[in-house]
Amino acid sequence: MTLRVGDIVAALGGELLGDAQRGIARLAPLEAAQPDELSFLADARLTHALKGSQAGCVIVAPAMREAAAARGDCIVTDNPHLYFARLTQLWQRVHGAVPQPGIHPSAVVEEGAIIDPSASVGALSFIGRGARIGAGTIIRERVTIEQGCSIGARCLIQSGAVIGGDGFGFASTPEGGWEKIEQLGAVRIGDDVEIGANTCIDRGALGDTVIEDGVKLDNLIQIAHNCHIGRHTAMAGCVGVAGSAHIGAHCTVGGAGMILGHLHIADHVHISSASIVTRSIRRPGHYTGFFPLDDNAQWEKNAAALKQIHRLRERIRSLEQQLLAVAGAS
Amino acid sequence: MTLRVGDIVAALGGELLGDAQRGIARLAPLEAAQPDELSFLADARLTHALKGSQAGCVIVAPAMREAAAARGDCIVTDNPHLYFARLTQLWQRVHGAVPQPGIHPSAVVEEGAIIDPSASVGALSFIGRGARIGAGTIIRERVTIEQGCSIGARCLIQSGAVIGGDGFGFASTPEGGWEKIEQLGAVRIGDDVEIGANTCIDRGALGDTVIEDGVKLDNLIQIAHNCHIGRHTAMAGCVGVAGSAHIGAHCTVGGAGMILGHLHIADHVHISSASIVTRSIRRPGHYTGFFPLDDNAQWEKNAAALKQIHRLRERIRSLEQQLLAVAGAS
Amino acid sequence: MTLRVGDIVAALGGELLGDAQRGIARLAPLEAAQPDELSFLADARLTHALKGSQAGCVIVAPAMREAAAARGDCIVTDNPHLYFARLTQLWQRVHGAVPQPGIHPSAVVEEGAIIDPSASVGALSFIGRGARIGAGTIIRERVTIEQGCSIGARCLIQSGAVIGGDGFGFASTPEGGWEKIEQLGAVRIGDDVEIGANTCIDRGALGDTVIEDGVKLDNLIQIAHNCHIGRHTAMAGCVGVAGSAHIGAHCTVGGAGMILGHLHIADHVHISSASIVTRSIRRPGHYTGFFPLDDNAQWEKNAAALKQIHRLRERIRSLEQQLLAVAGAS
Repeated sequence: MTLRVGDIVAALGGELLGDAQRGIARLAPLEAAQPDELSFLADARLTHALKGSQAGCVIVAPAMREAAAARGDCIVTDNPHLYFARLTQLWQRVHGAVPQPGIHPSAVVEEGAIIDPSASVGALSFIGRGARIGAGTIIRERVTIEQGCSIGARCLIQSGAVIGGDGFGFASTPEGGWEKIEQLGAVRIGDDVEIGANTCIDRGALGDTVIEDGVKLDNLIQIAHNCHIGRHTAMAGCVGVAGSAHIGAHCTVGGAGMILGHLHIADHVHISSASIVTRSIRRPGHYTGFFPLDDNAQWEKNAAALKQIHRLRERIRSLEQQLLAVAGAS
Repeated sequence: MTLRVGDIVAALGGELLGDAQRGIARLAPLEAAQPDELSFLADARLTHALKGSQAGCVIVAPAMREAAAARGDCIVTDNPHLYFARLTQLWQRVHGAVPQPGIHPSAVVEEGAIIDPSASVGALSFIGRGARIGAGTIIRERVTIEQGCSIGARCLIQSGAVIGGDGFGFASTPEGGWEKIEQLGAVRIGDDVEIGANTCIDRGALGDTVIEDGVKLDNLIQIAHNCHIGRHTAMAGCVGVAGSAHIGAHCTVGGAGMILGHLHIADHVHISSASIVTRSIRRPGHYTGFFPLDDNAQWEKNAAALKQIHRLRERIRSLEQQLLAVAGAS
Repeated sequence: MTLRVGDIVAALGGELLGDAQRGIARLAPLEAAQPDELSFLADARLTHALKGSQAGCVIVAPAMREAAAARGDCIVTDNPHLYFARLTQLWQRVHGAVPQPGIHPSAVVEEGAIIDPSASVGALSFIGRGARIGAGTIIRERVTIEQGCSIGARCLIQSGAVIGGDGFGFASTPEGGWEKIEQLGAVRIGDDVEIGANTCIDRGALGDTVIEDGVKLDNLIQIAHNCHIGRHTAMAGCVGVAGSAHIGAHCTVGGAGMILGHLHIADHVHISSASIVTRSIRRPGHYTGFFPLDDNAQWEKNAAALKQIHRLRERIRSLEQQLLAVAGAS
């Protein structure tokens, strides 16, 4: 099924320079796009890539207007990346690839769960008693929403996610064992949140675990009990957040980043991939901490030396003092 | 539904100073608790926090008795944290929030699985042939227990966990490919074990993977084939344990810790979060290894220098020798 | 059920020195094997371990022929490890432990999915419309294969895996939020691929995510959208690969290794466990980068010094210059 460029502009806006009747069969990256495909160019520094592209039509920013028009058809819009995102959504709607409202017959919904009629609950999912699913939210296949947890409107929960498992809480016994602390809180998720495949968000111990509006979590992420994640914060795959961490709004955490418990992270903090946060961060900024990759033989030498680094520091200090003495004497 | 303080003390013990008829509507943290809520204070250093609390009743240790009684109602007990843990369990029982024995109709139980009548198997779970589930154990929703694996008594397996997937075992072929080694062992889990959401424990190659009594595993943990984890050891989320590792009793592993294969870890070893264990640890203690977080610009400078650290060491050694020569000459 | 040694050799080849009628009840490790058990010895350096073994029969290489025959029955073959792998497969077939072709009645298969009649789809699995499952492939219990994804022949997908969840793609909005980029590509998996429990492979944004023939992925691995993984590459548990990474053939990635997005990794590259790859690797080799474990007190000292390492370097440089001046002056 093709979409005409004129229909795209009618739906999403932008200024069309070219043939409104042109049919678009697919969306494609600029370098690979064919004449029946549409592409976009978000970065003005890549304007040179326009020239060789065979794309039937390209979405560009006003600064690239001349160069794009010289090449062929284009749609000019202030934010080509955002326009393209909306186009992918239009594309899915037109092609009927959006899950329909309703509950799949193989899903298990306990009594007392409240699911908005416009929500979609996929095959083999489980919704516990007292859970609430908001308008337009899509719960894909094999998702667990445990008892009493709430999901806002327009959320998307990918397959295998577990929302509301027990937090990891135990009291130690005098015999060296562990006594379970039942987790009496729930998980509250805001609107427009996306949760990745096999990601886990634990219910709170007493209060709730809270995920604010617009948060985006990738796959295989662990959010422990009583965390609070501020709106529009995004985390890449394999991130772990330990219990009671409070993360601000508009933060990003790179893949496999790890945030310890009971920390407070300010708004607009960006954590690099594979970095571990062991203290609160009060100021916006970009923070990093991982061992740089090296050829294994080099790494072995450096790792051995690293274990003596505080002694090296002492030797430097001693050298400085001795040198001072020698210089004074000479 | 409220619980009277007198009923709590009747069930769990402790000395009540105050009104046995007082109704408790919720359990709450000390600083947020209201007059119809009950709280606890585990740490004597936080006694000052008692004063401002509005809690209807507070669980305290004998050392805090005077301060607590001066504030209002309290329950005095040797171990407030443990008491509180047991109270959360009582709370769940009284409120009917404990899964009932039996097998949910949507669960799939293969022929030859042996499930204790007092166990609970949640919705959409799978129990393979020859698997055994002990008394009082709770298998939550969407759990997989593969063929021939055994789970002891009073265990709790959270949603999405996979017990008994194949271990990762292959022989390399002369052509550079991999030939599967079928995993003929199983997983044996003791009593009172908790397994977190989406955690995986692989079956053994020839022998079994063994999880001893009282082990507590958080979410998204990987336990590879033929591991042996000693009793009462606890691991936080995102931990990985490679094949044939033998971990002692009463150990703890912080979130995202990683233990390589074929290692032997003694009892009472504590591994910090995000630390990687590459050699056996024979002595109890606290072990750590991760790159400390820093402002990204600082980290970049240090990471660059780090790659030369073994050369820095040589330069220091050379300086020391030269200085000796100079000092001798001067 | 026992298997006679003669039947094993008839099926798998190799030269039998000993009793073809001997019955084998189990396969076992050399050091623990009993007279009704069969074992193997892959490493010539371990020939001394042969002597004490009670195994009924041992698979050995030609170089160990004499020593093995002196002990008792043996099968001589060029590659004992590979022979043993094939024996475990024979063992499973003989014992009827191989999943039967067909679709479990509790699985949900959407219209338009094409499943080879020789494939096996386990309980509570989901196969989306337009998905293709090749000949002899085994989809275990509680697996998700999303719409339009294809799995080749003779693959094995462990429980809980999610193939074809949405890639993590968003355009930022002027208000600081995120606009979803619908993921229009799919996942294409070749032949003889194994995917571990709860592992996630995301669908591509425009093109496809591609896993070539013979790739082996362990549990809890995250493969992001548009990655390309070359044939026979193997990854251990908890690995993360970020979007659009292109990984060559015959690579290995140790547990919890992390590969950032848009990188290009050559063939025959080996990444150590817990190492993070932040740049493309053009040459085969062994690469490592993690902070070595230490006693916590030592680590704290070294971690503190580490944050000043670039300043230490400057102090060394300064010392060298001063020493030169002093030496010149003296």
